[in-house]
Amino acid sequence: MCRWAAYLGEAIFLEEIVTAPSHSLIVQSRDAREAKSPTNADGFGLAWYGGRPEPGLYRDILPAWSDPNLKSLCQQIRSGLFLAHVRASTGGGTSRMNCHPFISGRWSFMHNGQIHGFERIRRGLENSLSDAVYDRRSGSTDSELFFLLMIDEGLSRDPHGAATRAANRVLDASRRAGLDPALKLTAAFSDGKALHAVRYATDDHAPTLYTSAFGRGRCIVSEPFDREGGEWQTIPPSSFVTIARDGMVVRPFTPALAELALAS
Amino acid sequence: MCRWAAYLGEAIFLEEIVTAPSHSLIVQSRDAREAKSPTNADGFGLAWYGGRPEPGLYRDILPAWSDPNLKSLCQQIRSGLFLAHVRASTGGGTSRMNCHPFISGRWSFMHNGQIHGFERIRRGLENSLSDAVYDRRSGSTDSELFFLLMIDEGLSRDPHGAATRAANRVLDASRRAGLDPALKLTAAFSDGKALHAVRYATDDHAPTLYTSAFGRGRCIVSEPFDREGGEWQTIPPSSFVTIARDGMVVRPFTPALAELALAS
Amino acid sequence: MCRWAAYLGEAIFLEEIVTAPSHSLIVQSRDAREAKSPTNADGFGLAWYGGRPEPGLYRDILPAWSDPNLKSLCQQIRSGLFLAHVRASTGGGTSRMNCHPFISGRWSFMHNGQIHGFERIRRGLENSLSDAVYDRRSGSTDSELFFLLMIDEGLSRDPHGAATRAANRVLDASRRAGLDPALKLTAAFSDGKALHAVRYATDDHAPTLYTSAFGRGRCIVSEPFDREGGEWQTIPPSSFVTIARDGMVVRPFTPALAELALAS
Amino acid sequence: MCRWAAYLGEAIFLEEIVTAPSHSLIVQSRDAREAKSPTNADGFGLAWYGGRPEPGLYRDILPAWSDPNLKSLCQQIRSGLFLAHVRASTGGGTSRMNCHPFISGRWSFMHNGQIHGFERIRRGLENSLSDAVYDRRSGSTDSELFFLLMIDEGLSRDPHGAATRAANRVLDASRRAGLDPALKLTAAFSDGKALHAVRYATDDHAPTLYTSAFGRGRCIVSEPFDREGGEWQTIPPSSFVTIARDGMVVRPFTPALAELALAS
Repeated sequence: MCRWAAYLGEAIFLEEIVTAPSHSLIVQSRDAREAKSPTNADGFGLAWYGGRPEPGLYRDILPAWSDPNLKSLCQQIRSGLFLAHVRASTGGGTSRMNCHPFISGRWSFMHNGQIHGFERIRRGLENSLSDAVYDRRSGSTDSELFFLLMIDEGLSRDPHGAATRAANRVLDASRRAGLDPALKLTAAFSDGKALHAVRYATDDHAPTLYTSAFGRGRCIVSEPFDREGGEWQTIPPSSFVTIARDGMVVRPFTPALAELALAS
Repeated sequence: MCRWAAYLGEAIFLEEIVTAPSHSLIVQSRDAREAKSPTNADGFGLAWYGGRPEPGLYRDILPAWSDPNLKSLCQQIRSGLFLAHVRASTGGGTSRMNCHPFISGRWSFMHNGQIHGFERIRRGLENSLSDAVYDRRSGSTDSELFFLLMIDEGLSRDPHGAATRAANRVLDASRRAGLDPALKLTAAFSDGKALHAVRYATDDHAPTLYTSAFGRGRCIVSEPFDREGGEWQTIPPSSFVTIARDGMVVRPFTPALAELALAS
Repeated sequence: MCRWAAYLGEAIFLEEIVTAPSHSLIVQSRDAREAKSPTNADGFGLAWYGGRPEPGLYRDILPAWSDPNLKSLCQQIRSGLFLAHVRASTGGGTSRMNCHPFISGRWSFMHNGQIHGFERIRRGLENSLSDAVYDRRSGSTDSELFFLLMIDEGLSRDPHGAATRAANRVLDASRRAGLDPALKLTAAFSDGKALHAVRYATDDHAPTLYTSAFGRGRCIVSEPFDREGGEWQTIPPSSFVTIARDGMVVRPFTPALAELALAS
Repeated sequence: MCRWAAYLGEAIFLEEIVTAPSHSLIVQSRDAREAKSPTNADGFGLAWYGGRPEPGLYRDILPAWSDPNLKSLCQQIRSGLFLAHVRASTGGGTSRMNCHPFISGRWSFMHNGQIHGFERIRRGLENSLSDAVYDRRSGSTDSELFFLLMIDEGLSRDPHGAATRAANRVLDASRRAGLDPALKLTAAFSDGKALHAVRYATDDHAPTLYTSAFGRGRCIVSEPFDREGGEWQTIPPSSFVTIARDGMVVRPFTPALAELALAS
């Protein structure tokens, strides 16, 4: 499991979220409160949008707290839309290719969660990718593969539908492998315009997700980075959140139900 | 603060101490029980004696738990005398040069503890080094500097005396800087023949130190790596331990008293 | 393209080949003479056999010349059978998972060469792997994939046949993709008992391969590491070499011919 | 010796100089034309000025050509004043602390050159630093030490004088150590407003320095990054260059003469 934070709004220095708050993402890399493990030190990453349609990407394998480059970048870079992540591996070695966010074209994606039994369904899911998307696979995590499945399912046209269909491909593959489908998915992704997030699990323990206004913008995070200042709102499980310049919309996210409806 | 483990005896695979036990040093890098901080993830290192009088040295800046090289080396290398360390920085960046053990000629050294107020006495202590030893300074930690002070004080002729005099140089420098001397020193060091360790603090909280027979040898460690099997003996504060092929000797280690005696 | 050196014989310190000679592998990482590129600085690796049936593995992404760990390991580790490699990437990022040697069980493998048009046949070749072997894929290089193809083709029972059949799978895949098959393959591999090497190309420019007696053993290398001392023998293209404790055997290695024979 | 490039003018993407040109700094890291060594692969660094008075800093120990983070940062970051460096070590290990640029407060500094006999005068020069500056020493290179000497000599008030006096301190220390003073110094440094550079050597082989208009700005570089487009002007040895928004001034830089005048 991991910790992450994302922001959309008026451009701010990344440090205002990543390093400066009392319970910043950097602090969470060492001492998270609501994560399965307090330590999230298997690498980190930033994707931010600025002067180009495609995001910048900075990832490394050190613990976030011990990288002076990260601190300097967060002090210098100002962005109106960014994603930041600290990783606790649930499988997949510690390498830059396995660090979040992942990017593809204009899209960025990061994840806290896990596909249970991934090693048993990985090959089938990889085989199911279209050629164009298969070639973008560079690491070995379940998270990157989920992102690629979403791209395959039409992420750029229909983010909500693509995430739903990707989740269903995972659940189907689990069933076909004789597994009890078990997916935890608390993810954020963006095309440089809107910021989407999803909170979902097949059981009652979907990883936490919070949002709050932040200056002239809005944050969405794994856990609050500042107990004092923020007015944090819990996003309920089975939600799909879209934050745009003009506001936030929360919709149901119910892959299994969608599938049941389809089957009936 | 840090965690470390050292062994002298019949040659064993390093993994028997570093990676295999239930509460191995690798586990302690993530979840130490008796350390100030449970996380010791600011790099790690191994020094081992084998086919040469000088030790081999392997250090890197990743958390010990996420380095596949470390795991492989511990599976392959067999040694009758080695030191292993996982670091939690109290100052000094995360770089290989700041990772323990430090080596110089045949000597290796690793440390758990801290010189309080180090930034205020660092320059004076560095200036006090002899030319030959000054040039061996490659990092910026208080620990490496303590090792160099010991070398300057005749480590190879008189380990106990050198450690005592080095501690006194630190305490003197603190006093001259107008500080209340505060030193925590739980260290291990070796010349490839005997294995020495010291447990000392100027207050009542000297970092823990334990020893136990282990197969046809003996371990000395920051904290037990195996609750079940071992018969761990606590080394009391203000002790200097020397482990050799023919047994273990524990002597008092009382830098301040030595100095008082000298002064009177 | 890359540079590599391998040794089988009486145990020697790795440094005798890797770091000490006038034109050692370390020197070749900076200034190779017979390689396509003089610089081979996209990582390095060692696999060595010692106290266990499985090899030890040490790989990192720095240039070989700038890694103090590598120097220390080569000074300390003594082995009667080892493979060492410095990498010049022809594709695939600089990551530990893409550094040679690759290992699987008792086998180790390293390569200098290239599968031309790899990006167009990669997916088909990966799909053709058996499930057991597919899961061992951890990087993205053509070299690792060739090793996995060999394992799939029965490497442990029949090294010569497995290498031949693996090469044919590559050539077939190229043809099916409408490419002119082009393969350069100068590789070494071992199961901890014998040391095999192959020199092959579909054109007239098979990457060089040399062998020489070395002390009480034998080396096989990309290019001589010592112009003065050694009596280097060139291995001709289309050769398969097997070095064992009792001598060296050189056989033809002719994948395309084997296939023609089969087809007729 | 190393390669570097600096720019002052209207804000541009860093990639326009660092990665995009036909003979960009990245290409020079692998294949420099006018450097002592074609390979400059012992780390790299960027310092850039943007939203704050202090520069951002990104340094790492990989060869510049193999770092995907560097590529992405250069694509995203736009700056009107930046310094970029690829390192070929002449001493001092490969660590981030030894990579250029070095920064202190608002100042950044990078260097191509060498203090000959540095190991014999290093201690004396370090001892001569003021306390405030001594504590900023974090690596072990002659280059960082030269920067600290400049700060000690009043860099912020008088860049030309500070560089002259720092060079003289080095030459004096060499003489006192019984060495024939030998200094090669082709450096760039900035306070975020003006961009200074110096070309100097005690012999006839001062490392090269070129300048050219570049879009709505000006570059100053170790060697031209684009043979076709640029109209490169050679800066003669013993020159001190200051580039500001309103133009470039070239003055003599003659440490030894200044000293002779002083002595007479």
